[in-house]
Amino acid sequence: MLYVVGLGLGDERDITLRGLEAVKRCEKVYIEAYTSLLSFGLSSHGLSTLETLYGKPVTLADREMVEEKADQILSEARESDVAFLVVGDPFGATTHTDLVVRAKKLGIKVKVVHNASVLNAIGICGLQLYRYGETVSIPFFTSTWRPNSFYEKIQKNRMLGLHTLCLLDIRVKEPTLESLCRGRKQYEPPRYMTINTAIEQLLEVEQLKRESAYSEDTECVGFARLGSEDQMIVAGTMKQLQLIDFGLPLHCLVITGQTHPVEEEMLDFYRPKSENLEQQDNGV
Amino acid sequence: MLYVVGLGLGDERDITLRGLEAVKRCEKVYIEAYTSLLSFGLSSHGLSTLETLYGKPVTLADREMVEEKADQILSEARESDVAFLVVGDPFGATTHTDLVVRAKKLGIKVKVVHNASVLNAIGICGLQLYRYGETVSIPFFTSTWRPNSFYEKIQKNRMLGLHTLCLLDIRVKEPTLESLCRGRKQYEPPRYMTINTAIEQLLEVEQLKRESAYSEDTECVGFARLGSEDQMIVAGTMKQLQLIDFGLPLHCLVITGQTHPVEEEMLDFYRPKSENLEQQDNGV
Repeated sequence: MLYVVGLGLGDERDITLRGLEAVKRCEKVYIEAYTSLLSFGLSSHGLSTLETLYGKPVTLADREMVEEKADQILSEARESDVAFLVVGDPFGATTHTDLVVRAKKLGIKVKVVHNASVLNAIGICGLQLYRYGETVSIPFFTSTWRPNSFYEKIQKNRMLGLHTLCLLDIRVKEPTLESLCRGRKQYEPPRYMTINTAIEQLLEVEQLKRESAYSEDTECVGFARLGSEDQMIVAGTMKQLQLIDFGLPLHCLVITGQTHPVEEEMLDFYRPKSENLEQQDNGV
Repeated sequence: MLYVVGLGLGDERDITLRGLEAVKRCEKVYIEAYTSLLSFGLSSHGLSTLETLYGKPVTLADREMVEEKADQILSEARESDVAFLVVGDPFGATTHTDLVVRAKKLGIKVKVVHNASVLNAIGICGLQLYRYGETVSIPFFTSTWRPNSFYEKIQKNRMLGLHTLCLLDIRVKEPTLESLCRGRKQYEPPRYMTINTAIEQLLEVEQLKRESAYSEDTECVGFARLGSEDQMIVAGTMKQLQLIDFGLPLHCLVITGQTHPVEEEMLDFYRPKSENLEQQDNGV
């Protein structure tokens, strides 16, 4: 049996009782490294909080490992109970559909334990979740690669009066150009896009396209470390948010569509009070 | 302090460790009755599973109580720790924004504990969550009230190639017409829309509008009891799904937009195998 278990967004206490039962039952436990290293403040040597809670060792599985060693993980799951842990929900922003498809094709039973993901946790800002359009991803621009397909999607959402969730780029374990040339594996340091960079890129594309999909006066909501004890949520125009230091990653950004009075009322709690930014605290 | 705690979708084991800690700390615990009675198989006299887990009594709060006694709940939260439990995520399909806004206006601290909601748990069918457009609600038609604003929204989503989540009507504690006339409180028995009824209404509106937003051959995914041990997920055309008995509520329906090969591959696992419907089991 392959258990795909969502860990939620904050820390080790965001696992569900059902998820914890599953992990305790499993002989082998993997955790995807792509976002977990960051979200849970883990390092390759720092899985101990989780391991203490689970009472067993946890193997960090980076993208390469999941791709290269999927056969091994799946053959273990055929013989015994294996847990694959994922930050957020298993089918949230990052999908693990491929591993599940491969398991099902091999006739291995798969059970999914759901949890919160960024896609529903953004509801906390008061913008109604059913009034969001297509989600977009903002990739890091380079000198030669500045893809802007997100622009048209935001434009369509806003024409329909809908909000847009912008997921911001995460670059973890990217091989250096040099190492690609030399065939030796060396990696760039991890990079996580800030809200400031995202807005800079968004405004650059608006400057280029000039179709008024949005402007520096468009109302947005910036989220940093959503679901964790020191989460920060600020509502304001792009221009306002660009001046704010949201601190450590992960960040994401919502561009509002048409807002209703009840949405506005809730957003007001997140607007910067003159020189006194309200830092929202979700600690329990 | 007011804790607004998401319970997830299945049963009492879907609360997170963080949520359970919060509940254990609280002096008073309310649970919203609107969907919890059903999702958790609870009755007004059957809160004992939760009460045993939490080690304290739980007060069932129906919509009237939340509206009429919000002042009481909030004044308790001002003096001590109060938990308000919500099926799914606090800001999922049903929102509790109003209670949170009132608490914040009174200066009462609010902490939110997130959990899975139907909005992200539908990801299990393989349709990518970022490729959904606006969510629609399908209300029960009556002889005199047949609102169809969902039609245009589905049409727009499908024109953009996006999937549409249809939330199906729940009618709990609706006063009878007779009781409204007599001023005595009597309620209709609860009603939960099935996938079959939803498709019937959808096709009726298509017949009326004739704009080909969708047809009986449009691919959909039906979900019953999502996230619980006996959940049932079936992919097929509207015509096919209309013949299927999905069993007990809650039901919801996804109308596909353009599907990618990886989405199709996953949907294939949920297609009815000749006279042998695959019932998906999420039990852990």
